[in-house]
Amino acid sequence: QCNLTGLWENDLGSQMHVFEVDSEGNFSGEYLTSVSSATKPIQPSPLVGSQHLDEDGQCTFGFIVNWKKFSDSTAVFVGQCFTDDKGDEVLKTSWLLREKADALPSDWKATR
Amino acid sequence: QCNLTGLWENDLGSQMHVFEVDSEGNFSGEYLTSVSSATKPIQPSPLVGSQHLDEDGQCTFGFIVNWKKFSDSTAVFVGQCFTDDKGDEVLKTSWLLREKADALPSDWKATR
Amino acid sequence: QCNLTGLWENDLGSQMHVFEVDSEGNFSGEYLTSVSSATKPIQPSPLVGSQHLDEDGQCTFGFIVNWKKFSDSTAVFVGQCFTDDKGDEVLKTSWLLREKADALPSDWKATR
Amino acid sequence: QCNLTGLWENDLGSQMHVFEVDSEGNFSGEYLTSVSSATKPIQPSPLVGSQHLDEDGQCTFGFIVNWKKFSDSTAVFVGQCFTDDKGDEVLKTSWLLREKADALPSDWKATR
Repeated sequence: QCNLTGLWENDLGSQMHVFEVDSEGNFSGEYLTSVSSATKPIQPSPLVGSQHLDEDGQCTFGFIVNWKKFSDSTAVFVGQCFTDDKGDEVLKTSWLLREKADALPSDWKATR
Repeated sequence: QCNLTGLWENDLGSQMHVFEVDSEGNFSGEYLTSVSSATKPIQPSPLVGSQHLDEDGQCTFGFIVNWKKFSDSTAVFVGQCFTDDKGDEVLKTSWLLREKADALPSDWKATR
Repeated sequence: QCNLTGLWENDLGSQMHVFEVDSEGNFSGEYLTSVSSATKPIQPSPLVGSQHLDEDGQCTFGFIVNWKKFSDSTAVFVGQCFTDDKGDEVLKTSWLLREKADALPSDWKATR
Repeated sequence: QCNLTGLWENDLGSQMHVFEVDSEGNFSGEYLTSVSSATKPIQPSPLVGSQHLDEDGQCTFGFIVNWKKFSDSTAVFVGQCFTDDKGDEVLKTSWLLREKADALPSDWKATR
């Protein structure tokens, strides 16, 4: 089974600590990004997530990082656990970053 | 302040029920989609989310829908609360839907 | 058959003029956006595109807008022609906007 | 200056041949994908594109691949030229793949 609990690092050097996954697949954790488009200094940020609990160790999952400690933005990630050729667990994810738009006419450019 | 608690409906007819938002901005709820690419019948699905707690009622937020009751997929949404010209609250969101890929070489096409 | 040639307007008020589509499905045109994240004034911008030439009037297509007259950015759109309930032709599209990153470490945030 | 003309290969093994870029930044070429969600066999596919002609060799660009030889789909790519640490030219791109939806209610899932 895909066990997200633990420490993960991505290609950009961002680090994620996933705490215990409960029986529903819900989890919380902490995300320390290595990149930011905010002006304030980066801080470790809380995350909440949810995963499928499939037997085959290749579950899909999603999580949200709330950047409230240094920004108005929110990020969501969605992905899947895999085991690569060397037997290592890898997470493949896609993300969206929502910046706060000052009003509806600026909504079109708020997500990257 | 942006209050997500309650019932929301999108343009496609999907309905979302957001339960109480706690003091950290975390919430849970239920999502009933009107559209699906799965073969099993649609069922109400659990969601977990996180929002900023800004004073101005225009917070950004994210949530995850775990489709485990009828599919291997996971969806994430990210967005912002607005008040439109008529004074109604609207949520503007973007989403990613992750389907389960059978192996790494199929990863490229698993997210829409 | 889906005929893109002519004038189109989107929900934000941006206008697109598609010139003649050739026998390969290639076309050029002009795009006048109503929204911009650039600092220079908006100007009509050249576009090039390509569409399928299916018989059923529901072809997929793509086009690129080169914003060189007032910005370093490039946008791509991909979509499909439909006929709606009232018998009107509508184009449903998705887009990506690439801003110029100053170097590789900023690449992660250059696309919205 | 960013010179797209030539042969490029991506991480998945797909190959792109860009022909001459004209004075407006327009170009055509051929794309041989290594991955496909279509049922027919993959064939080399025509592409058209447009790039900025900046002096600094870091231009943004976009191109469209028309998969008409074996599918109803269209793909768009948008990206930027960079020179990496070793002095090699690299292209960083994002893409959208539009599949043909049979009708408007299926539009929501047609782009990945």
